[in-house]
Amino acid sequence: MILEDSVLEKEISQAVIRRMPRYYRYLGELLDEGVERISSGELSERMSVTASQIRQDLNNFGGFGQQGYGYNVSFLYEEIGKILGLDQNHNIIIIGAGNLGQALANYMKFDRLGFHTIALFDVKEELIGKNIRGIEVLHVKELDHFVKTHDVDIAALTMPKSSADDIANHLVSLGIHAIWNFAHVDLSIDAKDVVVENVHLSDSLMQLSYNIVKNK
Amino acid sequence: MILEDSVLEKEISQAVIRRMPRYYRYLGELLDEGVERISSGELSERMSVTASQIRQDLNNFGGFGQQGYGYNVSFLYEEIGKILGLDQNHNIIIIGAGNLGQALANYMKFDRLGFHTIALFDVKEELIGKNIRGIEVLHVKELDHFVKTHDVDIAALTMPKSSADDIANHLVSLGIHAIWNFAHVDLSIDAKDVVVENVHLSDSLMQLSYNIVKNK
Repeated sequence: MILEDSVLEKEISQAVIRRMPRYYRYLGELLDEGVERISSGELSERMSVTASQIRQDLNNFGGFGQQGYGYNVSFLYEEIGKILGLDQNHNIIIIGAGNLGQALANYMKFDRLGFHTIALFDVKEELIGKNIRGIEVLHVKELDHFVKTHDVDIAALTMPKSSADDIANHLVSLGIHAIWNFAHVDLSIDAKDVVVENVHLSDSLMQLSYNIVKNK
Repeated sequence: MILEDSVLEKEISQAVIRRMPRYYRYLGELLDEGVERISSGELSERMSVTASQIRQDLNNFGGFGQQGYGYNVSFLYEEIGKILGLDQNHNIIIIGAGNLGQALANYMKFDRLGFHTIALFDVKEELIGKNIRGIEVLHVKELDHFVKTHDVDIAALTMPKSSADDIANHLVSLGIHAIWNFAHVDLSIDAKDVVVENVHLSDSLMQLSYNIVKNK
């Protein structure tokens, strides 16, 4: 049950990775219920996916299961946590301290997963100095100094789309390698080593609306 | 260039549908720039997807292109809008008037797409009666009456996950068929004709964190 480097190094599809947080969530719930081990069949029923899908997904990372024993819940929970990088802390800054930025800063759940918001930035004078759960809203003009003097892993972009591209590229030039983009625009970032995760809320709404119409 | 019913009736994969809002967005930008027609090659370059992907995607809906002419931008924009149900208005109620609920109610962009928030609901007394862009926060105890006396198409769930399942099933019993779920839980809804679109923010953050670790 030891992860081999060769297994971890192979390219795993983003579709598989997209399913991992869900495994992590269900395993966490099992842990809370005091369940120590679970068969792929039981896990399959609970998660409404096939047992073969579960085995295939987890085989990407070297398996974790033992024939006739099933999965050790806390071991699997921890290993998936490591795969997802949750054994590390990640500091987040939020650019745009409007409702959405404040909503993100308020999610205590993110802290429990190791994602800590350490500052918000905005240009609106009435927001500067505001305090959200002890996290301060700073003026954007302090951004450069802040990033240079703090350990920032992720920048969340929750400001209007018109300035998203400029800010994103500026953040990358300051050495930030991960962008959580809520602005409704595809960012054009030249640097190859920057990862971007988009949350396009209106796309999600359109997907819903397509299914409403299709269902009628 | 006429859509045939037979074409529309076949099952189109959700992966294709997920790409449609992006086409819609790019075509809208082209319209704003006054571009009347575009070849699949030019569109491909602009969107950073292959021309063959574009042709394949649009062929699911009957094509839209003419050999040697390319795509008529405004026609394609409107047709994709219809496919996505954007030629209709959709009324939204938001359950949970915290920061996230207020952020959603504040997005004027949704209105431009035909998604109109008509009320927010909460249980916190200090929020009841609050007004967001003219949209009122009502007490959850008024929910039943409101839904029965208004045309509600979509319920957005932005309250804590502990009550999400109960509220979702209650909304379905009131006749709501579409749920936009921000609560970090898989809803268990028995009714077959209900569509659910999930926005799991912490899953998105974990996906980002996986890619950060992989990139190191």
